[in-house]
Amino acid sequence: MAEQHRLRISTRARSSHDITGDIAALVANSAVDAGIAHIFVRHTSCGLAITENADADVRRDLETLLRRWAPDGDPAYRHDMEGDDDMAAHARSLLTGIELSVPFAHGRLLLGTWQGIYLFEHRAQSHQREIVITLLG
Amino acid sequence: MAEQHRLRISTRARSSHDITGDIAALVANSAVDAGIAHIFVRHTSCGLAITENADADVRRDLETLLRRWAPDGDPAYRHDMEGDDDMAAHARSLLTGIELSVPFAHGRLLLGTWQGIYLFEHRAQSHQREIVITLLG
Amino acid sequence: MAEQHRLRISTRARSSHDITGDIAALVANSAVDAGIAHIFVRHTSCGLAITENADADVRRDLETLLRRWAPDGDPAYRHDMEGDDDMAAHARSLLTGIELSVPFAHGRLLLGTWQGIYLFEHRAQSHQREIVITLLG
Repeated sequence: MAEQHRLRISTRARSSHDITGDIAALVANSAVDAGIAHIFVRHTSCGLAITENADADVRRDLETLLRRWAPDGDPAYRHDMEGDDDMAAHARSLLTGIELSVPFAHGRLLLGTWQGIYLFEHRAQSHQREIVITLLG
Repeated sequence: MAEQHRLRISTRARSSHDITGDIAALVANSAVDAGIAHIFVRHTSCGLAITENADADVRRDLETLLRRWAPDGDPAYRHDMEGDDDMAAHARSLLTGIELSVPFAHGRLLLGTWQGIYLFEHRAQSHQREIVITLLG
Repeated sequence: MAEQHRLRISTRARSSHDITGDIAALVANSAVDAGIAHIFVRHTSCGLAITENADADVRRDLETLLRRWAPDGDPAYRHDMEGDDDMAAHARSLLTGIELSVPFAHGRLLLGTWQGIYLFEHRAQSHQREIVITLLG
């Protein structure tokens, strides 16, 4: 049994957005009793990751590392059509991934206490991002 | 409901191979109406990633970065049985991942306009690679 | 059809733990004939990856690279509540990921010959880790 939903998020530049509540609400209202929630962003310059939800410095430090792993405007890049952050954003997407699944049962996500689900905006500008959620059970 | 298929790809060294059309064809011919297509490579030295399908320089730049993140023949490696690119290929697989899922509905993958699904050959030689696709709905 | 199980693993510091046999046993005893086994760790400072099962040096070299990519006690980190390895562990989790799926059919995982499923402990101390496995078919 599969149920599909869409979610639209207005992002801020190089920020992470907590979408845990949005996914939890879909699961709470679903006819699927137990299974996985598959989350997929329809873009190649943002990403999804599950990380600590308690101290916002964790996500700030992840941003610091992403900037180091895939620097903006690196002279080695050939792809720079949309500016210095263009190729860096695609590389960040490779590292974070753009899809993941979370198990659920009886209307609740089976996340650990300290886990939050985050949409990472990898571009240096705000964007409208679309997410497809598939509940499978 | 689950449907499984196999796909065999002859890769070229350190190249990315667009498998979007192969996966789309399986989905178009499937009896599963809506759900996810899970794609899994049965190897530890190649990978799967969804990235931009418009400008091939994006994948060339990703290759540049993968080479930087996991250099061939790094003196720190102990595993070098199959040559300088052996351990580097395993490390690249960790970074790209070897499996991912894409949602679909009514016979069509729900990819964004600029998203393609790519098999990345992380070895410095050509290989025969086997992929298992599971359609779940 | 979905079946859920829990697995508890006592980890050793900065070690990888082969959980292939545990997952294979769940699949062998499952009523689900074919589909995917989704594996999810309920933590943000360990990870899951499929990598080579033959030469243990591969996992030793991955540890070397993870240490390089996300150094302990990096002066750029703000999050260090639980010590020098705290933020490094969250960053390693981002790179390895904390969930993945493996296809199976007729009671057997469809892994390649050289693939093993590993839990990576990213902290510098031992921990109790909980894994949720969802079998979907």
